[in-house]
Amino acid sequence: MRKIFEAELQALGEDLDSMARLVVDAISRAGEALLTQDLSLAQQVIADDQAIDALERALDERCVLLLAQQQPVATDLRVVVSALRISASLERMGDLARHIAEASRRAYPNSVLPEQLRDTYIGMIEASRRVAERVYAVVSSHDLEVADTLERDDDLLDQLHNDVFSTVLGESWTGNAQETVDATLLSRYFERFGDHGVSVARRMNFLVTGDFTRQDV
Amino acid sequence: MRKIFEAELQALGEDLDSMARLVVDAISRAGEALLTQDLSLAQQVIADDQAIDALERALDERCVLLLAQQQPVATDLRVVVSALRISASLERMGDLARHIAEASRRAYPNSVLPEQLRDTYIGMIEASRRVAERVYAVVSSHDLEVADTLERDDDLLDQLHNDVFSTVLGESWTGNAQETVDATLLSRYFERFGDHGVSVARRMNFLVTGDFTRQDV
Repeated sequence: MRKIFEAELQALGEDLDSMARLVVDAISRAGEALLTQDLSLAQQVIADDQAIDALERALDERCVLLLAQQQPVATDLRVVVSALRISASLERMGDLARHIAEASRRAYPNSVLPEQLRDTYIGMIEASRRVAERVYAVVSSHDLEVADTLERDDDLLDQLHNDVFSTVLGESWTGNAQETVDATLLSRYFERFGDHGVSVARRMNFLVTGDFTRQDV
Repeated sequence: MRKIFEAELQALGEDLDSMARLVVDAISRAGEALLTQDLSLAQQVIADDQAIDALERALDERCVLLLAQQQPVATDLRVVVSALRISASLERMGDLARHIAEASRRAYPNSVLPEQLRDTYIGMIEASRRVAERVYAVVSSHDLEVADTLERDDDLLDQLHNDVFSTVLGESWTGNAQETVDATLLSRYFERFGDHGVSVARRMNFLVTGDFTRQDV
């Protein structure tokens, strides 16, 4: 019985790894498409989001079956409940990468990035990619050391999000309404991406330490 | 043992009811504050969001304890897992109502609503309030009939969200960058509010029928 359970838990962990890996690919490609107007890359992110959604559903069903059939307690139970939460956050991160790719696709062949904000978005693209890579590290290796640097990148995303508003609402802004809308929504997607990354890291913290107090962002 | 479990499940249901009730209050007051520039009402929504967050944490701990101590199966297990999911969506709905109230507070004593879009936002305020009331009905009475009308209001929110963009990106738009940013973000908050409402209804459907196929938005 225990052996079956261990195998099931391992499969659960592998599903989470796969989801986190797909999220790294999604945000990396969405960022690249944003900078290079690569339409096929944007299309790929949009199509691949279905794979993330499918993994979430499979993982959910696996969790419910595990709870029903194996009746886990203590750490095992924490793993299953955390997996449910983490998969929901990873699924949202995939959605946000897709929204970023959809913005690129809509503007194609033009760039959706306002020239005045290009450097700010480069910062966001890099920070969100690091967040995804650290989420992958924390999910796959339970390395809680990574969590602190992840929170710093989330802070950076918040700061860049504010920078976007400062620029858009400043005297020097020459963007039209479309550019203002794009700047606002893109920035919001990156900012939320960081929030979900922190949420995953905190839930992993709960999973590993049992400390329930810092799970929500 | 069964008696204790029944009592625990009932307490879980009551926590969800309380959260859903607070979400109805939050979105109603946030909408009212948006229309009337009532600063104290906006402040109240912002302050009350902490109560929703606290209920979510309490409910989560209750669920984990229930899973550990009572080892539920079948329908009981579905109830507990669904409660975990539903509380996460309700918590996000509270956040979105808070974001709407924060936008009102930031613009005070002016209105954050651009005059050109006032009617569109009145539609969004009404639809989101109906969504919250139906979420409350579905959570408190398990009335799945309400779910269909809830999805129609979510469709309406999506359509109004598109209307906002059509206006903002149209020739007649005279708003400045601040108004464009506000219009974009407010609209996005209402649109997401509807999505989470649908998500709650679909999870209640899963809970009541066991049909796992239509849970995600």
